[in-house]
Amino acid sequence: MQEENTHMGPMKRFTERIVPATDREIEKKTVAHLDDLTKPPGSLGRLEEFALRYCLCKKNADATLDRVAFFTFAGDHGITEEKITPFPSEVTCQMVGNMTAGGAAISVLCRNAGIDYTVVDMGVQADLDDLPHLIKKKIDYGTKNFSREPAMTEGKTINALECGFDLAEESGADILGIGEMGIGNTSSASAIYSLILGLDAAATVGAGTGSAGQFLERKVKAVQRGIDRHRMEAGDDPFKILSRVGGYEIAGMTGMILGAASSRIPVAIDGFIASAAALVAMRLDKNVREYLFFSHTSGEKFHRDFLRAESIRPILDLDMRLGEGTGAVLALQIIRQAMACYSYMATFSSARVSNKE
Amino acid sequence: MQEENTHMGPMKRFTERIVPATDREIEKKTVAHLDDLTKPPGSLGRLEEFALRYCLCKKNADATLDRVAFFTFAGDHGITEEKITPFPSEVTCQMVGNMTAGGAAISVLCRNAGIDYTVVDMGVQADLDDLPHLIKKKIDYGTKNFSREPAMTEGKTINALECGFDLAEESGADILGIGEMGIGNTSSASAIYSLILGLDAAATVGAGTGSAGQFLERKVKAVQRGIDRHRMEAGDDPFKILSRVGGYEIAGMTGMILGAASSRIPVAIDGFIASAAALVAMRLDKNVREYLFFSHTSGEKFHRDFLRAESIRPILDLDMRLGEGTGAVLALQIIRQAMACYSYMATFSSARVSNKE
Repeated sequence: MQEENTHMGPMKRFTERIVPATDREIEKKTVAHLDDLTKPPGSLGRLEEFALRYCLCKKNADATLDRVAFFTFAGDHGITEEKITPFPSEVTCQMVGNMTAGGAAISVLCRNAGIDYTVVDMGVQADLDDLPHLIKKKIDYGTKNFSREPAMTEGKTINALECGFDLAEESGADILGIGEMGIGNTSSASAIYSLILGLDAAATVGAGTGSAGQFLERKVKAVQRGIDRHRMEAGDDPFKILSRVGGYEIAGMTGMILGAASSRIPVAIDGFIASAAALVAMRLDKNVREYLFFSHTSGEKFHRDFLRAESIRPILDLDMRLGEGTGAVLALQIIRQAMACYSYMATFSSARVSNKE
Repeated sequence: MQEENTHMGPMKRFTERIVPATDREIEKKTVAHLDDLTKPPGSLGRLEEFALRYCLCKKNADATLDRVAFFTFAGDHGITEEKITPFPSEVTCQMVGNMTAGGAAISVLCRNAGIDYTVVDMGVQADLDDLPHLIKKKIDYGTKNFSREPAMTEGKTINALECGFDLAEESGADILGIGEMGIGNTSSASAIYSLILGLDAAATVGAGTGSAGQFLERKVKAVQRGIDRHRMEAGDDPFKILSRVGGYEIAGMTGMILGAASSRIPVAIDGFIASAAALVAMRLDKNVREYLFFSHTSGEKFHRDFLRAESIRPILDLDMRLGEGTGAVLALQIIRQAMACYSYMATFSSARVSNKE
């Protein structure tokens, strides 16, 4: 028997403008243009799939891809009290500093790819200075320990969703990329997967940033305790699950996905944790999925299983498991190249190239 | 009983400077630097493997990747007499025009990635005008029909190898990418795979640019006829195989690979046909392999089998089967990002980020 989804009502304001990204006419026009480009039909493989997906999101067969914006959402996690990771929570704040200063992997990758980069403080435990590339949207100084109590209140969860939603709307970007930073957040992501998909912690918990031995044992136990504690109250309501075991940066990403899909902006989803935010969004509205590019298969254990279960074929498979959005930047470069081919290749007629005999 | 490799002697001048790209000291230093970057050890996955491979090629743990140069080798094929493809040979010349004018997929991809781009006429059947981005190194006006006679003379094969070799040396690039254009050249590539790996045409021949039905039947038969005709004379001598069933653009790529490896320049190999050129180079000198990045698994049937047989894990798998070098450009962007992380990320000490407790 299903729990009543009491929060699907208030969630409507986040999903009411999301429509299916399918349109027979646009699809026909886009495919016809792809087939007129100077190459054998279909020979650009998945680049053609990406160009079609992009044009369908835009509902425009003449769509172009110019501005890319990237957001890393940051937040701390009370679950770290359970000694589930060898890295101290302070690292979240230090890494935000490193990201804004340009020394983190994500900053280097975005800079090198010519992509606008912003870090969003959603719930870092310390107050942050004014820094370049940083937007301060702190909802709270980290979540509560979800193995013992709800991670966030429902009100603050809505605040975090709104924040991400608004950032997407205001971005002015043609396409967005998202990633995260938050010591402890693989535990939150695993709990979200477990509660939405009905799996034990043993199935969804992996090493994260570097949990092995006793750290990993404690992590599995703490996540399982959280699952057991919140299963009844949360039921299969994705909002309640997010609120009870998620985090501010995860809710920020979910909000950004909903805001992007509402504005016909596709989003490149990074790895394990960003995918958990995407799963919440997809369960809130099934039309969301068509706006998402899953960037890569993470090296974090359960991610491959999740992708297979949802029949998602990501763009890359490079054993990356850093987070921050690092895999999504590489995928965005490929999507950008797919759209460059779509927009700027010659056609058979214009280039006077002979087609098949 | 093996045939005597009579041509391994003259081939020495192409391979004498190729040394193994392995060095314990450089490896230790490179890995130590990778582990000092502000990320959990190994979390950049294969990007770390690519950075290590690059530094080993350069024999320098402080190597940087700045200049990328890309070459598309073009040539025509006598085997098209056998009506093995629906595209007329004129398309090779037309596509060279399209590439130099910036309208081909490869031109768009290189331009968008900021990569220097050059087309090399190795054996196009028509005389070409002076065009931007075009280097004229025509050895002949296309190959002979290898199903009936040797595709090239040994002398002209050496000329083509020399041409590619010299272009690599003179490129001044830190890393190279290679691809090809030539109607009929999947047939040549299949014959090379078959003769080197001891397989029938049925195993190595695929649809190429668009051979189906009768085209494909004729293609399998023509390639098998070529294999049968040249097997005895060529034996397992990679040079003789290249000469008898290859093409000028394929020999040009093999030469560029040998020249690059001789100068410690790594090369990103495109798909099915570029891999056949790489296979010849790897069989001429086994140390070549360490200088190669196999870019992607082509949609062309036998490519996946070849990669598996050689235990090669390519960078991308996007069902691309266009050639020109299109897959290699995308792989080069990833390698460039790997080296950007290596060169420009902060270290734990410099960024004051706490490492594991």
